[in-house]
Amino acid sequence: MKDKTTFIRQKISDSTIRRLSIYLRTLIILEKGGTVTISSRKLADIEGFTSAQIRKDLSYFGSFGRRGLGYNVKALKKRIAEILGTNKKWDIILIGIGRLGSALMNYEEFKGRGFHIKKLFDKNPELIGKKINGITVNSVDQLEKKVNPKRESLAILAIPPQDVQSLIERLNLIGIKGVLYFASRTVTVPKSMIVRNEDTTVELETLTYHITNRTDRPVKPM
Amino acid sequence: MKDKTTFIRQKISDSTIRRLSIYLRTLIILEKGGTVTISSRKLADIEGFTSAQIRKDLSYFGSFGRRGLGYNVKALKKRIAEILGTNKKWDIILIGIGRLGSALMNYEEFKGRGFHIKKLFDKNPELIGKKINGITVNSVDQLEKKVNPKRESLAILAIPPQDVQSLIERLNLIGIKGVLYFASRTVTVPKSMIVRNEDTTVELETLTYHITNRTDRPVKPM
Repeated sequence: MKDKTTFIRQKISDSTIRRLSIYLRTLIILEKGGTVTISSRKLADIEGFTSAQIRKDLSYFGSFGRRGLGYNVKALKKRIAEILGTNKKWDIILIGIGRLGSALMNYEEFKGRGFHIKKLFDKNPELIGKKINGITVNSVDQLEKKVNPKRESLAILAIPPQDVQSLIERLNLIGIKGVLYFASRTVTVPKSMIVRNEDTTVELETLTYHITNRTDRPVKPM
Repeated sequence: MKDKTTFIRQKISDSTIRRLSIYLRTLIILEKGGTVTISSRKLADIEGFTSAQIRKDLSYFGSFGRRGLGYNVKALKKRIAEILGTNKKWDIILIGIGRLGSALMNYEEFKGRGFHIKKLFDKNPELIGKKINGITVNSVDQLEKKVNPKRESLAILAIPPQDVQSLIERLNLIGIKGVLYFASRTVTVPKSMIVRNEDTTVELETLTYHITNRTDRPVKPM
């Protein structure tokens, strides 16, 4: 298992992985638009990164493109999808069908990237048994019975902060491999699981940090 | 303006800023729970980072804590809020009151961190004129008339991808300083603006990357 490629991969920063995902979404649009090749300079221009950054990010994973010819859009898209693991489909269970959960269920982008929400869970008795987008909402009490970890490997938690930790532990015992949760709370992550947190407050605070600390231009007085 | 502190700050990575925001949310909980001091080791334990990482992140911004005594929770919380700019209130306009926009409007965490959604905009005639949480929904056509950039400095865009670029340009002309948008699309950012993108697809792809490329344990066959 520990060949050179996987060894190198372990050192890749999350920032690089996030950028690869961003390149991928742009390459999908470019391919749809009929673009056959793109230079790192042009891609950099679209993304607002430097072309050196793009070449460096891609260099971790082998050699892409040919000098003077740029990258083949279709081939680069395919290769990045392989790196990110989205060349195959991922079945997802969604826990929490409130406003956020409903927004995620109707998020068009997921399907185009291989993410399929297959099972729904909630603890609200008014929702349990109802069909949403053709999928029956199960009681979260039925999690162990209803989840098939051989099919569903990811879970999205759109639930209140106080319920996240206990659900992560239950999902770990079930054999779910990865969890994305939205609550603004730190959790303890089981060793055999990958857990990501998307916290809008953190995004807003990186925004206010940069606004507060900008020094590259005169900041207008408020 | 270009004193030593601001010069150093420009080099701080986004990963550090994100971690500061994560420390802040934990410190808020710890303070509420009555914790007076905390060691970097204990904080590291909660966050799942190393204590060296925490000390390094904080060292960019001066000296905190005393060896053997740890950090004073209240003082550290206050200092991080100052660094992130959330020691003051931020008034926000929200554009797009669909499922995601509604979820954001009801996100309890915002208020506790100084973020206040003050004005609402949508293009759906059925929503325009209605009051949601006591705030009247304006037509997005009225953006230039209704936004006061001296009060509202941030905008959140919970709108379809195809509308994001043109709205960022309009908000820039109005004088909005920072924008957070959720669409899975790269945009061109005006120089005088800070723009952040929260894309759930990117988070899911970092998750699938790590699951696909784990080498620290035997991966069960699917």
